[in-house]
Amino acid sequence: MIERALISEFKKAVGAEHCTTDPADLALYAYDATTVEGNPDCVVFPATTDEVAAALRLANDARVPVVPRGAGTGLSGGAVPVKGGIVLSLARMNKIIEIDRANLVCRAEAGTVTGVIASAAVAQGLYYPPDPSSINFCTIGGNVAHNAGGLHALKYGVTKNYLLGLTAVLPGGEVLKTGVRTMKGVVGYDLTKLICGSEGTLAVVTEVTLKLIPHPPHRAVAVASYPTAKAAGEAVSAIIAARILPAMLEFIDNTSLRCVEDYLKVGFPIDAGALLLVEIDGRPESVRAELDTAVEILKKNGATSLSFADDPVGCERLWEARRAVAPSLGKASPRRISEDITVPRARIPDALERIGDIGRKHAIPTAVFGHAGDGNLHVNLLADQRDLAIRPRMQAAIEDILRLALDLGGTLSGEHGVGLAKKSCLGWEIGADGMRILREIKKTFDPNNILNPGKILPEIGSE
Amino acid sequence: MIERALISEFKKAVGAEHCTTDPADLALYAYDATTVEGNPDCVVFPATTDEVAAALRLANDARVPVVPRGAGTGLSGGAVPVKGGIVLSLARMNKIIEIDRANLVCRAEAGTVTGVIASAAVAQGLYYPPDPSSINFCTIGGNVAHNAGGLHALKYGVTKNYLLGLTAVLPGGEVLKTGVRTMKGVVGYDLTKLICGSEGTLAVVTEVTLKLIPHPPHRAVAVASYPTAKAAGEAVSAIIAARILPAMLEFIDNTSLRCVEDYLKVGFPIDAGALLLVEIDGRPESVRAELDTAVEILKKNGATSLSFADDPVGCERLWEARRAVAPSLGKASPRRISEDITVPRARIPDALERIGDIGRKHAIPTAVFGHAGDGNLHVNLLADQRDLAIRPRMQAAIEDILRLALDLGGTLSGEHGVGLAKKSCLGWEIGADGMRILREIKKTFDPNNILNPGKILPEIGSE
Repeated sequence: MIERALISEFKKAVGAEHCTTDPADLALYAYDATTVEGNPDCVVFPATTDEVAAALRLANDARVPVVPRGAGTGLSGGAVPVKGGIVLSLARMNKIIEIDRANLVCRAEAGTVTGVIASAAVAQGLYYPPDPSSINFCTIGGNVAHNAGGLHALKYGVTKNYLLGLTAVLPGGEVLKTGVRTMKGVVGYDLTKLICGSEGTLAVVTEVTLKLIPHPPHRAVAVASYPTAKAAGEAVSAIIAARILPAMLEFIDNTSLRCVEDYLKVGFPIDAGALLLVEIDGRPESVRAELDTAVEILKKNGATSLSFADDPVGCERLWEARRAVAPSLGKASPRRISEDITVPRARIPDALERIGDIGRKHAIPTAVFGHAGDGNLHVNLLADQRDLAIRPRMQAAIEDILRLALDLGGTLSGEHGVGLAKKSCLGWEIGADGMRILREIKKTFDPNNILNPGKILPEIGSE
Repeated sequence: MIERALISEFKKAVGAEHCTTDPADLALYAYDATTVEGNPDCVVFPATTDEVAAALRLANDARVPVVPRGAGTGLSGGAVPVKGGIVLSLARMNKIIEIDRANLVCRAEAGTVTGVIASAAVAQGLYYPPDPSSINFCTIGGNVAHNAGGLHALKYGVTKNYLLGLTAVLPGGEVLKTGVRTMKGVVGYDLTKLICGSEGTLAVVTEVTLKLIPHPPHRAVAVASYPTAKAAGEAVSAIIAARILPAMLEFIDNTSLRCVEDYLKVGFPIDAGALLLVEIDGRPESVRAELDTAVEILKKNGATSLSFADDPVGCERLWEARRAVAPSLGKASPRRISEDITVPRARIPDALERIGDIGRKHAIPTAVFGHAGDGNLHVNLLADQRDLAIRPRMQAAIEDILRLALDLGGTLSGEHGVGLAKKSCLGWEIGADGMRILREIKKTFDPNNILNPGKILPEIGSE
């Protein structure tokens, strides 16, 4: 518990009306999009970088944990205050500071909703590509903390590829300005890209400088259905091997497509073993030619039906459907576990087959969807993780799935991050020497371990 | 001086014939592409990661400086052994380990020449875009150490955008495997991108995993001449503001183009105030359409002549000419200083005008060329930096140019790095808190300060 005197100091720092200890309020900040919970002692809502610095100084002096929070849409427990303390919400820092059309750069406060930035860019004929499924709710600060991906990462890359610079506050209240607002910069160690993906454990990001690119003038999406997940996986590998780089190449298995169809009535063929969504963008004349080539490969790999959208409304509808896959699985199975492995793209058919085996072995129903073009598969275990009779089997299945990812030359997480969910197996991928470096970097930034403690790094001795 | 017993140990570690203390050999490893020199005590040529680890352990135990070296083409003094010790040449580790066509990934040893990787990719219909002017000599390890850019960074990004993972050896001989060989990965702090750009001060990179992309099927280059540098600069800003992203958008001023014309006889119009080289790539039908739009803007901004190349040989000839600018200036003025500032692209006309003013103020002739589309300008001071009567004026001019870059919202270095050349002004850009973090990161990786000591970080007290 935090002392009342300290709460008063926080109220002074951010304004009494922007600091709450009301249990009803605290309950709202006890969770993220996982099922883990942890009650904070206090939630503060600073409005400026200086207020963030003041709050951090207070917390650091008192050795009180601080959990930075965007919109709480994270999928690895990153925003859950498992050790109590302060939730530092960036919700009031939600302004786009500037869209510089002449330089193709955007500056925004960390609490700005990513979709707001994307729309503001589009209004200027520009494009901010990273689009996690939660784009209409999540914040750019959370995206930076987790290096968020999205539907268009295959061609356009992830948050880190668009992050030029940061304003970030260290636990002692020092305000760091990292990076550049130019297209290049190689001056000193890259703190921007180190803080990006550090899940709020190194510094609190308050402002971001993003690179924008010209908006592609045209796009078209093909939807192809396959009799089996494996056949669809083979088509993905064939497209990549044919050196086509679609803007989007998404995979949805039968269970996932039935769920989303039930939820949204998109008109997907619910008997298909799996669907692929393939988007090509660019100038209209190239889109047509490249889509023809892609469709030929889709057919050659056994597509049983094909449909198309080549207008903005139709494409947006398919994106919405794809984005609705996770929520619709969540609706059908609220206490499921959603995994996030990434494998080399040629190994997708193997991965899909072995994920099926793992589900059967542990008698846990699975649903798989994801950014197949990246090799990033979201494996969902459709059971109640709070059911103590089932939970050990789910844990065993997860362990098998994570080991499978590493076996196939992949990684434990493509875009959800480590947070609480994967810290116990971080060492499998990073190794002992890497873990030592990670711990020392943490100590360099946050010597008192007040920033999002208990995330990413396992407690010493538990590795 | 290193003790003879230690030299014997190095000979045991890498083989006697791969370790030299012959003064004639040492003289060859005393310099890079700058004019700074510093004699090593010994040069070792390990053939494997294990041999690198063995050599580092010996040096670390004896507290002897180790300077990793690729091809010595660096432009900031990064490979110069200014504190003596061991030069650790990666020249024997020069093999492409694998080009994985199915996953669009290349693995190579750090001493592999970048152009060899690029050609091997092309042979598979794939593309490794980062192409510094020294592409046919420099090594991928050096590119990673400096996060090298190149002619095509505007559209395709720099080395860091293609670097998926590393094998790197810490000073104590621990072998780190960082990153992934998948398209995504967010597991732990990003050591891959931290080591990239650290100029050999944190670890010795021995192997790299690179992302490849499909090779663009077609390209065309327009060469436009302008009466003044400023007019050309305005055309650059106009192209970016029109939301066209050429594959290449290069600027060459009159002095530079006269030099390269003298050297290569390309047929450039030597009376032009400046030239722009604008390359568009993609599918043939889009290339034509986008080039038309770009040419319209070039004309509207006062182009006085225009010529084109749309075949591979013609394009390659223009790239060669552009790559020859720096060597030809070097031939004309061997002891010049080559700067590397980057400014927001809309500020290029201002930058060009004020660089002219600075040259006149200090009575030092200048030549400017560079990756204008990125805002990355190579400002050359054409005088003899060893002439003690001129040197103070050159130093004053450089200081003015670096301050100008920061004034315009830019950065001290776009792609050459800090090395020795800019360490004294690193703090101007990074700030005191950032410098503290940088120093602590250095200490985390290299507690005994044996790895490339004296580079990037200024000696304490000299900031």
